[in-house]
Formats: sequence, C-alpha cells, structure tokens
Amino acid sequence: MADLETLKKEAALRAVDLVQSGMRVGLGTGSTAKYAIEELGRRVQAGELTGIVGVATSEASDTLARQVGLRVEVLDPRALDIAIDGADEVAPNLDLIKGLGGALLREKLTEVQARRLIIIADHTKVVNRLGEKAPLPVEIAAFGFLSTIERLRAQLPGGRLRQPGAQPFLTDNGNYIYDAQLPGAIDPPTLERQLKGTLGVVDTGFFLGMAERAFVASPDGVSELTRP
Amino acid sequence: MADLETLKKEAALRAVDLVQSGMRVGLGTGSTAKYAIEELGRRVQAGELTGIVGVATSEASDTLARQVGLRVEVLDPRALDIAIDGADEVAPNLDLIKGLGGALLREKLTEVQARRLIIIADHTKVVNRLGEKAPLPVEIAAFGFLSTIERLRAQLPGGRLRQPGAQPFLTDNGNYIYDAQLPGAIDPPTLERQLKGTLGVVDTGFFLGMAERAFVASPDGVSELTRP
Repeated sequence: MADLETLKKEAALRAVDLVQSGMRVGLGTGSTAKYAIEELGRRVQAGELTGIVGVATSEASDTLARQVGLRVEVLDPRALDIAIDGADEVAPNLDLIKGLGGALLREKLTEVQARRLIIIADHTKVVNRLGEKAPLPVEIAAFGFLSTIERLRAQLPGGRLRQPGAQPFLTDNGNYIYDAQLPGAIDPPTLERQLKGTLGVVDTGFFLGMAERAFVASPDGVSELTRP
Repeated sequence: MADLETLKKEAALRAVDLVQSGMRVGLGTGSTAKYAIEELGRRVQAGELTGIVGVATSEASDTLARQVGLRVEVLDPRALDIAIDGADEVAPNLDLIKGLGGALLREKLTEVQARRLIIIADHTKVVNRLGEKAPLPVEIAAFGFLSTIERLRAQLPGGRLRQPGAQPFLTDNGNYIYDAQLPGAIDPPTLERQLKGTLGVVDTGFFLGMAERAFVASPDGVSELTRP
C-alpha cells in the first residue's frame, strides 16, 4: 500500500495529464498542488509541454513555479484554460472548502477565470457535507477584526481567529482569517451570501459550483469524480 | 457671506457640541472631519472636555488627532458613543455616499459601532438621490483587480480605477478603489448587496441607515437634518 504522499502525487499527475501545450494554467497552493506544479515544471523542462504560462494563486506557488522553470504571469482578465488545486473538503457535488493554506481569496479570484477547475486530493478530504471535518476559513479585514469576528460569531458561534504564534496569520492580501466551525445543517450558497455580505468580510473558503472534476487518491488508487 | 471653509467649520462645531466628557468618539476622515478633530482637540486641551478617547478611521486622522492632543485608541468591539464624519453625498433620508477620501472601509467598520453617527457637510453635498454628483467608491482587492473591475463594469458600466498617478490609489488596507458612476434609477440597498457579494469586492461607499443627523453648512447658515 502506497503512502499518502505518493498517492497525492499520483492524483496530481492525473490532473497534469489534462494540460496541453500552449495553455494558461492556474497554479494552486498547498501540499498537493505543489506536486502538480513540480510535475508541470518537469514536463516543460523535458520538452513534453511547450508554451505553458502559469498564473499563481499565492506568493509561495509563484516562487515554486519559477524554481521549477515555469513561466509565470500575473492574473489579468483573460480566461485560464485550466486550473489545478487542492481542497480541504470535497462534497459529493464537488462543492469545496478551501483556504486552510491561507490563499483562499487569490485562489478564488484566479480559479473563477478557469474554463476547467481540476481538484486533486487524498481520500481523507472527501466528505458527505461541507464542514464535516474542516473549518470554513473566512478572510477578514485586519482593521477592526475583533468586531468583525463578533459579527461572524453571531452567525457561526464556533470558530476562532487563525493565530499560529504571537501575531494573527496574515494572508497575501494583508488580511486575517477566522476559521469557523460549521453546524450540521447549512445551505452553503445561502451561508456564503450571508457571510460575504457581512461587514469586514473579504471572502470565504466556499468554492461552490466551480470544480469540474476531482482526482482523489486513496489506498486503492486514484478515482475520478465529476460534477453531477 | 462666509466662505465654504468657514461654514464647514461651523457645521463641525455644531457636531462637536454633542460630544460630552468621557465619551469614546469615532474620528472621521477628510477636509470637513478635520475641523471636528481640531475642535475636539482644542476643547480637550482647554479642559472643556475630559476623558475623551478618539478612534480614528484613517492613518491621516490618527496622526492629526494625536497632533492636536487627543488620546487615540484602536477600534475594539466596544461601542462608540458618537462618531463625527463628513460625507460625499447626503440623501434626504440621510443615506450617504462616502469614501472619496479613500477611507470607506475603516470609516464603515468604525461608524457601524457608533450609537450616534453625526455627519457634517456643506450644502453642495446634499442630493435628491445618491450618485447624482459623486461616484460610488468600491474598495476591491488589489490582486486580480482588472478581473474584478470587469465584474463591476458588468453591473455598473461607467466607472474607473482610482489612479491619481503612475500607480493605483492604495487604501489603508492595501486595496484599490473603483469609482463607479451610478445610473439614475437604483435601489441603494439592493445595489449594495449585489456589489458586496461580487468576488473581489471588499466594501462599497454606501452608508445606508447609519447616520442619525447631519449638520449642513450653507451660505444661509448651518441647518440640521435628522433621519426620518
């Protein structure tokens, strides 16, 4: 039985198989997306793919992509042919929670422009309902964050500011993140509208109706899920 | 006939008359709010007011408040007793457009916590409908701003990125501003929800249902408007 990292890499390879020469590719963020970026770099360096342009969803992915020899451009209004990224939770309809890596806003801004959003994950990320295991990250303005958190707690009582050390975690956009525990019975689109409409909220980690397919690595191999 | 600056200062004095010793006061931003901060500082220095704590809505107002001798604290979840600020447009029901000074998000985050929001303005700011003269500032994430502007243009075609020089104007929160021209017939609460719900939008310059009263300076003197 292969270990989880080997399986995540396998799933990443399946996603990269969908990339063709000349494509503009959205580059995800996190421990699984990293494998896709590395594999994309390898194929470009080996001459298996040509004319690839990457658009990174975080400073970290931008740096990694350049290190593996990819050409990287900033996001502009042109469509991306494909984007490949991990997810923290994948629901049966391919709705997602993302952002435990802290890049949710840039990921969403980038991936909404992709003709195809391909998710790579290990089997522990597949859930029956969003919020089953993972908190929902909510990106909030740093100014007045304590008040914004009170407004969020009034809607989602369980949750806390992400603060790994002495200072709150800072996103690439200079914002903070509130990790909200979701109650059992929620309607993600309704909650998404409600949270996004809350003063001080910049965006949430809900990625609804965006993913086209997911490659999920499990001890039995890589399975492919598509949006119903 | 007094000049406009003298009249704006008179309106500011009327607002500052509502401040009592021991109050926590939200300090607005801009050329009219400046007069209120200066007058508040004068009264504190003169011993006419004691125990005043200011909470500033911009770096500029924070600096000015300290210069005139006010004690300034950062925003926390406690209520403010009062906030005094200017506005770019004041509708008959005291709905406002704010943010031409670029501080709209911090102003809104602060002033939503004020038990009383008092507006000071000159008579040129009073309009029959919001958007009559002023654009609506919309604060947007800098990352992917061109795509966010496309999403905004699909809703409000007339408008442009605020860019006074070679670089876009940067808010205190590190975001950009899109100044949108409003068409004649809009419902501000509906448009506000729609815009705030747009991917990449952080907040808008609509301040709806927030102001309690406005002191409006005109050549005939200062008139007082209250929310109907």
